[in-house]
Formats: sequence, structure tokens, C-alpha cells
Amino acid sequence: MTESPAPPLADRKARAARWFADLRDRICTCFETLEDELTGPNAERLAHLQPGRFERTSWRREDTSVADPGGGTMAVMRGRVFEKVGVNISVVAGRLTADFAEEIPGTDADRTFWAAGISLVAHMQSPHVPAVHMNTRHIVTGTGWFGGGADLNPVVADAQDTADFHAGLKAACDKHDPGYYPRFKQWADDYFFIKHRNEHRGVGGIFYDYLDSGDWEADFAFTRDVGEAFLATYPPLVRRHMQRTWTDAERRRQLVQRGRYTEFNLVYDRGTRFGLETGGNPDAVLMSLPPLAAWP
Amino acid sequence: MTESPAPPLADRKARAARWFADLRDRICTCFETLEDELTGPNAERLAHLQPGRFERTSWRREDTSVADPGGGTMAVMRGRVFEKVGVNISVVAGRLTADFAEEIPGTDADRTFWAAGISLVAHMQSPHVPAVHMNTRHIVTGTGWFGGGADLNPVVADAQDTADFHAGLKAACDKHDPGYYPRFKQWADDYFFIKHRNEHRGVGGIFYDYLDSGDWEADFAFTRDVGEAFLATYPPLVRRHMQRTWTDAERRRQLVQRGRYTEFNLVYDRGTRFGLETGGNPDAVLMSLPPLAAWP
Repeated sequence: MTESPAPPLADRKARAARWFADLRDRICTCFETLEDELTGPNAERLAHLQPGRFERTSWRREDTSVADPGGGTMAVMRGRVFEKVGVNISVVAGRLTADFAEEIPGTDADRTFWAAGISLVAHMQSPHVPAVHMNTRHIVTGTGWFGGGADLNPVVADAQDTADFHAGLKAACDKHDPGYYPRFKQWADDYFFIKHRNEHRGVGGIFYDYLDSGDWEADFAFTRDVGEAFLATYPPLVRRHMQRTWTDAERRRQLVQRGRYTEFNLVYDRGTRFGLETGGNPDAVLMSLPPLAAWP
Repeated sequence: MTESPAPPLADRKARAARWFADLRDRICTCFETLEDELTGPNAERLAHLQPGRFERTSWRREDTSVADPGGGTMAVMRGRVFEKVGVNISVVAGRLTADFAEEIPGTDADRTFWAAGISLVAHMQSPHVPAVHMNTRHIVTGTGWFGGGADLNPVVADAQDTADFHAGLKAACDKHDPGYYPRFKQWADDYFFIKHRNEHRGVGGIFYDYLDSGDWEADFAFTRDVGEAFLATYPPLVRRHMQRTWTDAERRRQLVQRGRYTEFNLVYDRGTRFGLETGGNPDAVLMSLPPLAAWP
């Protein structure tokens, strides 16, 4: 691949922000279609619910340190297939605290930052359909980079699902750099780990951060391909399992697994803790928490 | 009050540890009695459950830095009044990490510590019966002190319950020092606060730590009186509300309030975070989490 000169900063920001919004729209449309496809005993079991539709709520960030602190839009659907799914996008700007800036590249001379991203968490009605998380983002400080990832969270791991999910992400990675998948898979294994339980959250996926190869177009294209891979890979897993009935014991195991997911997010997840500590919108930050969780 | 000379260290430890175990026994007996008192429509509604009885599980702490690292006993009951209540006692010894020792008095020359305590969290079947937390402990390093507290967590605050709970704790405080209640109530208000929600967890109570007045007998007597006040004050609140029926909407609000409780414990609670970070038994550390919680 030949390196392209980076487009002007304003264009880079605008294109990234537009991509996250477009991806959000396509994901929402696809997930609403899945809601309409539920038939048979599960549709009867959940007959008290309508096929889900996303509801969007916009919020503005309060911050007087910059002219336009930005904000975001939460899209939340509570349906018959997706018990609760949130697809949030945000475009925010501000000034990092000195403490937090220590960990963030490009903030020595100036602690202002700009960030845009998409963040998705789906908790499913059926214990047979794996929960999932996907997030990609573009951050600009004195430098700029992409980050993100996706991981699959089944109640009971299904070898075919795990293989398909990883294959989709690997193909997206391999298109750009044969070193990406092994590195980003390992990063996910290290990151999505519930230390106090000594157990992984889910069956992994990929995680990457600070991606700045020197070729902005290539890094942006990779981040788009991660989104495309998610959209190509996850809905077939939903379709594979969504019509299968489940028992109360299976539902119970799902609620316990969601308890573990809650532990990870509140104790370890960097985005969650950063959002809570810096006065983010708690409803948007905690959108990732399950609708219902149990501790046995 | 005249100050008594402190008894020898071994006696102090033994008496404190025995008190926590005795208090545990009395609380468990009392709570099992409440289980037997459920009658009427709530007993019919929960007819699939037996009146609860505590089950005890002992665990040993793994730590080769000291001859006897100790351990504890969890007592857990899942019943018709108490959906899940844990009453844990522990007597542990070890050596603090240098990082953690920085925050702990009496560890400059020697980072070994000894700690005994009781910790109770009750999540109730009925949304009308407030959840509750109570904990007292005795810590010995190069110095020694008592700490603890109790706080009430109703779904919807009931003025009489709040007044009675605080009156019981205030009487225990006032018996020892007229300055205790205002100070320890404020400490609870500051501590049991969910910063990212800008809301208090529950209707407060008392919280105290590093209590070392110079009179060990007096400090131990105060800590015993906090336990006595809990045992005298909370069961009447349970009896006051436990026979009242509830609606699905009330149950739903209870599960959401438990979500908030979970957020506090996993994000802010010092004991929980310390336990998780130092490799405590996660089941004992997370005993405080609710059996079922919801995020709206």
C-alpha cells in the first residue's frame, strides 16, 4: 500500500465522526430487522413485547474549557431479541486534567482533546445468543490515533460462534497488517480479564489503542473495517440461535454471567471509570450495564 | 468515665474476635425468627420457598507472609423475608503491601496487621422492607483501632424508619460521647455517596474509622453498642413492613435501587476494592452484591 498524505485536520475529524454515525445507522437498521424476524415459541413467550425499535436521546457535554464541548446521541432498543442494546455515538472536546493527561499521548504542550466514537453493548433476551460489545474511536490531541475493539460474551461458549466471530475480525485485521490480529487478539485477552475472579470476560475478540501507523487513511480504513466485520459477523450469530427456546436454568446462568460482566465494567473498564470520574453523563457511560443481573 | 488500663494484646484480640462471632450468632438467630413470622399473602406468594436458614461456609486465607493468615466464615441465608443476607466474620493477619501501608496507621516500622470484624448486608424480598448494611471491625498494626458503621437502604424512604434507625444509632453514640453521632452521621453521609449519580446511597446511618480514644475498653464497648443498636433497631423495621404486599412496579424500583447499590460497592466501597485488589476471597468480598439488580 502506498501512504496517502493525511487530509487536513478538520476533514479528518468530520469524516471520522460521519463514519461513526453512518455505522450506527446501519447497525440500528440491521438490529431492528432481527427484531422482526423472531417467530415461533420465543415470539409467543415474549408476546407481551413489541418488536424493538431504537429510541434516540441526544445529550450535550457541559464544559466551559472549550468553545464546543460537543455531546452525543444514545440509541437504545429494548426488544424481543435484544433485551437491551445501546449504540452510542459521541463527538466531544475538552481539556484533560493534569493527572489524566499523564497517560495520554500528545498532551505535553496542550491538554485539549477531541474524540469521536461509537460504542455498542447488546444484552440479549435468549441465553443462547451471545452478548456483544463493540467500540471504535478516533482521538486527537497534539497527535491523533484510532482505537477500539469487539468481544463476544456467550453464557456458554459455542465453538462455531467463537470461530466465526474471530474469523471475521481476523480477516479485517489481515487486510491491513498480518501482525494486527495476533497482537490485538492478545490485547483483548489481557484487557477483558476479571482479575479478582481469575477468569476472562467472554471468549475475546480484538482490542487496539493508540493506532497511529503514520498513514491516517490506512488507520481510518482499518477502523472502518472493524465496524464492517462486526456488522457482517454478529447478526448471523444472532440468527443462528434466536429461535431456540431456553429453560429457566439457562436464563439464570445468563443473569449470573451478566453479574460478572457488571463486575468487569464497574471495577476495571477504563472507559467506564474515566467516564464516571470525569463527570460524564452516567446514563450514557453506564449504558453498558445489563438490564438485569444476578449474583448467586 | 474512668479510663481502664488496656488488657494484654492477646486478650484484646480474643475478646474482639469472640464478640464478632457472638453478635453474628445472635443476628442469625433473630433473622431466622423473622423468616418464620411471614404469614398471609406474602407467605402464599413465596410458597415455593422455605423459611430461610443460614448456611455457613468457612474459608482460609492464603498468605505465606505470616504464621497464621486466618480466615473467616460466611453465613448466607436465602429466604422468604431476606432474599439474600450475608453475615460474614473474619479474623485475618498478614503483611500489607508498601503502597497500601501508606494509608494505614502504625505500619512505619512493621507492615504486619491483624484484623477481625463482622460484615452484614441484607437484600430483602419485599420492596417495602429496607435493605441494610452493618460492619464493625478491630484492626491492630503497630497501633490499634475500631471502625464500622451501619446504613439503611430503602427503595422509597420512610420517615419513621429513617428516624428510628438513626435514633437507635444516636443513642448508642450518645452513651459514649455526645460528639460521636454528629461526626459519624456526617461521615456516613460523605462516604455512602454515589458521586457519578450525585446521590446518596440510602438514608444514611453512621460510619467511623480509626477510633482510638486511648481507652481500649471504652472503644470496644462503643463498637459493641453499635452492634447492639443494629440488633435492636433493624428487626422492628422488618416486622413493620414485611407482611405488606407489593406490586411489580415496586419490585422493579427495588431492582433499580439495587443497581445503584452495586455501582456504589464496585466503584467506591473501600473494603470491596481493597478485597478485590489484594486477592481476597471474591465470593466473600462480593457477598454484598444483590441477588438480582436492574439497570433501567
